[in-house]
Amino acid sequence: MSDALVDYRRMWTDLGLDLEAHDMLLAAIPQLYADAYLSQRDRPEGMAYFDFVMSEIHGLRIKELVDHKAAGGTVVGTFCVYVPEEIIRALGGVSVGLCAGAEWAYDQVEQLLPRNTCALIKSAMGFKLGKVCPYVESADLVIGETTCDGKKKAWELFGEMAPVYVMELPQMKRPQDLALWRGELDRLVEKLEEVTGNRLTFEALQTATREVNGKRRALQRLNAARTASPAPISGKDALLAVQVAFYDDVPRFTEMVNRIADELEQRVAEGRGVAPSEAPRVLVTGTPMSIPNWKIHDLVEKAGGVVVAEEMCTGSRYYDKLVPEDATSLGGLLDAMAARYLDINCACFTPNAGRIEDVLRLATEFEAAGVLHYALQFCAPYQIEATSVERATRDAGLPLLRIDTDYSPEDVAQLSTRIEAFLEILRD
Amino acid sequence: MSDALVDYRRMWTDLGLDLEAHDMLLAAIPQLYADAYLSQRDRPEGMAYFDFVMSEIHGLRIKELVDHKAAGGTVVGTFCVYVPEEIIRALGGVSVGLCAGAEWAYDQVEQLLPRNTCALIKSAMGFKLGKVCPYVESADLVIGETTCDGKKKAWELFGEMAPVYVMELPQMKRPQDLALWRGELDRLVEKLEEVTGNRLTFEALQTATREVNGKRRALQRLNAARTASPAPISGKDALLAVQVAFYDDVPRFTEMVNRIADELEQRVAEGRGVAPSEAPRVLVTGTPMSIPNWKIHDLVEKAGGVVVAEEMCTGSRYYDKLVPEDATSLGGLLDAMAARYLDINCACFTPNAGRIEDVLRLATEFEAAGVLHYALQFCAPYQIEATSVERATRDAGLPLLRIDTDYSPEDVAQLSTRIEAFLEILRD
Repeated sequence: MSDALVDYRRMWTDLGLDLEAHDMLLAAIPQLYADAYLSQRDRPEGMAYFDFVMSEIHGLRIKELVDHKAAGGTVVGTFCVYVPEEIIRALGGVSVGLCAGAEWAYDQVEQLLPRNTCALIKSAMGFKLGKVCPYVESADLVIGETTCDGKKKAWELFGEMAPVYVMELPQMKRPQDLALWRGELDRLVEKLEEVTGNRLTFEALQTATREVNGKRRALQRLNAARTASPAPISGKDALLAVQVAFYDDVPRFTEMVNRIADELEQRVAEGRGVAPSEAPRVLVTGTPMSIPNWKIHDLVEKAGGVVVAEEMCTGSRYYDKLVPEDATSLGGLLDAMAARYLDINCACFTPNAGRIEDVLRLATEFEAAGVLHYALQFCAPYQIEATSVERATRDAGLPLLRIDTDYSPEDVAQLSTRIEAFLEILRD
Repeated sequence: MSDALVDYRRMWTDLGLDLEAHDMLLAAIPQLYADAYLSQRDRPEGMAYFDFVMSEIHGLRIKELVDHKAAGGTVVGTFCVYVPEEIIRALGGVSVGLCAGAEWAYDQVEQLLPRNTCALIKSAMGFKLGKVCPYVESADLVIGETTCDGKKKAWELFGEMAPVYVMELPQMKRPQDLALWRGELDRLVEKLEEVTGNRLTFEALQTATREVNGKRRALQRLNAARTASPAPISGKDALLAVQVAFYDDVPRFTEMVNRIADELEQRVAEGRGVAPSEAPRVLVTGTPMSIPNWKIHDLVEKAGGVVVAEEMCTGSRYYDKLVPEDATSLGGLLDAMAARYLDINCACFTPNAGRIEDVLRLATEFEAAGVLHYALQFCAPYQIEATSVERATRDAGLPLLRIDTDYSPEDVAQLSTRIEAFLEILRD
């Protein structure tokens, strides 16, 4: 056992993790990762960074968070792209996503939540109940939001186990909704000032905005390369980059992703791809995919397709829109930020025509041959909106495959068959 | 075939109903009603009115709506206790609930909505798709709201088949939420002025407020009598009164319910009840029950218990709170109305501690021996909140039975067994 590992075990114990359960979790991830990721041929060299990140996701990164806290910093756990990372960062906080993406401690979860709760929420609750998520255990504050019934009500129970603060996201996007949301940013500033002991300044928020925009721009570059045929990077690798964006140090991540983008642009110039140019190109749209949920991308790409874009919160919704940087006052910057965040097209809004426009636009830009609508089972907003997405893609002549699933491997064989049949249609 | 029936068939055809399917529906309801209602012993005589209402629910009442429209009036369909009937009424509209409460045309519904949608929403959609609800077909406008993910997104699809207008209900109850909601009332006034062609005046809204409060007061009186032991009226009959409140003519309904209240007060004075005083007294809390959904009350009462109160939207949440009548201006009255409606304790709010206080308060007032938590399957807000309700009642020493179900009769035998066992506990 290396010194580092010994050190991590002490750290995990100090964080209150259940070491035995956590060992089981840590033993499972590398296998999953190797099977999905390391089995790929001709990956961009820059992805080695993500291999390293994944190998240290409960280790070195947590050590950094613990050190940050020891130096007087704050760690803030979030769960949703509507929570402005800029504000957290400007107040000396580090924003991290919370664990979700695998089934864990469902027996305990189902004593609190109904079985028919979506896998994302059950998983997050399970990681907390099972004491295996060092991110939530490091968090000085967990910021929830009212994006869906399940999360809205689950936060009430989660709040009994961790310090939870809930932002109210409105359900429409009219001026009065923007006003409410703008007020929520003020409330958040107030809460985070209290938790961090710092005071928000224009300069700090401006710097944080540029940094977080820098991360978004890097992801935009990486993803722009995927418009090329053959695709220079697998969908799985591109997905991983966005997944890690929620956890990683912002400047380091930005630099590493820009390096990968350099490499991809080189590949595009050379016409070099990870899949043959005739591989069916798929746009995936729907609910977010948290680490280690690579199920759908893995199935599509092992069946010979290539995922070229993700219209999801672990995808374009995360990085497509920048916060305008030209505000000249703190209030002005917060105004711009409120408008930008409200402009994300989640199915929690009604109506949500913007998402359908995004799907069609991305399908064109990325030359997708078909669309895969992915929803977690029991996620009513996306499952219902799928009907409208399906109509719109049909009208646009784009085949659509609709998959409603969870984190269980149980349906993999059945999904595989459906995906293979779908790719056959796209090949015709 | 009587003249009236002939007339109704012509009316139903004119409304666009599918007569054949509608005949099937109409054939089923009387059986259900007879089994649940007419089989009861010693019912209050005043319930004869409701027997009549039920026999004419797709007949005479629809004729009244059609006549109202012919005279230049408007019919507005609603689905939720948050939609202020006072405003509709003050503008010359008649507010009616929409059909939901039975499984209908689910094969068509499941082409639009996921299977895991709650029965209320599937049923409402099914009645529309199957063309068997004369209320929705009579409606000049259907007013939806954003109370839950399922309804919020289903309205988008419903809006393709009927003129739907959606109110945004906020998800918290702070001053800024009240401000948003107050604005929604202004928007609603504007919309209804457009649809009705009338202009809202203070006097008309004041009159409508008094009338709707009169309906609430009558229901308060009826329900106050249920605090007595033995219970002077069955839970089933009391439930029916609130169910019909959503559809019936306001002054007539108020008068009839007040007559029943007179009778019940007389019964209480005489110590006369519909169940022995030792019958276990049950408070039911949870999701609303639309006609003809009498499943739970029927099972409890056939098993020898008596339902003494409903903490639900077809229960105390409908009538417990009055709109203050002392405002001296239109704006002031709308302010009071906004505050009153936002004060309803639906699980769609976070937090929603008020509902738990209501459950405990009602259990005490109505001397309930136990609480039955009723939720429609896939209703995340109520299913998740059940965990908190269960804890609170346990802490108060009140046994709680949790039932998650739908409109299908399939689980009746199993529910019956569980309810009988629960009543046994309450008898001990």
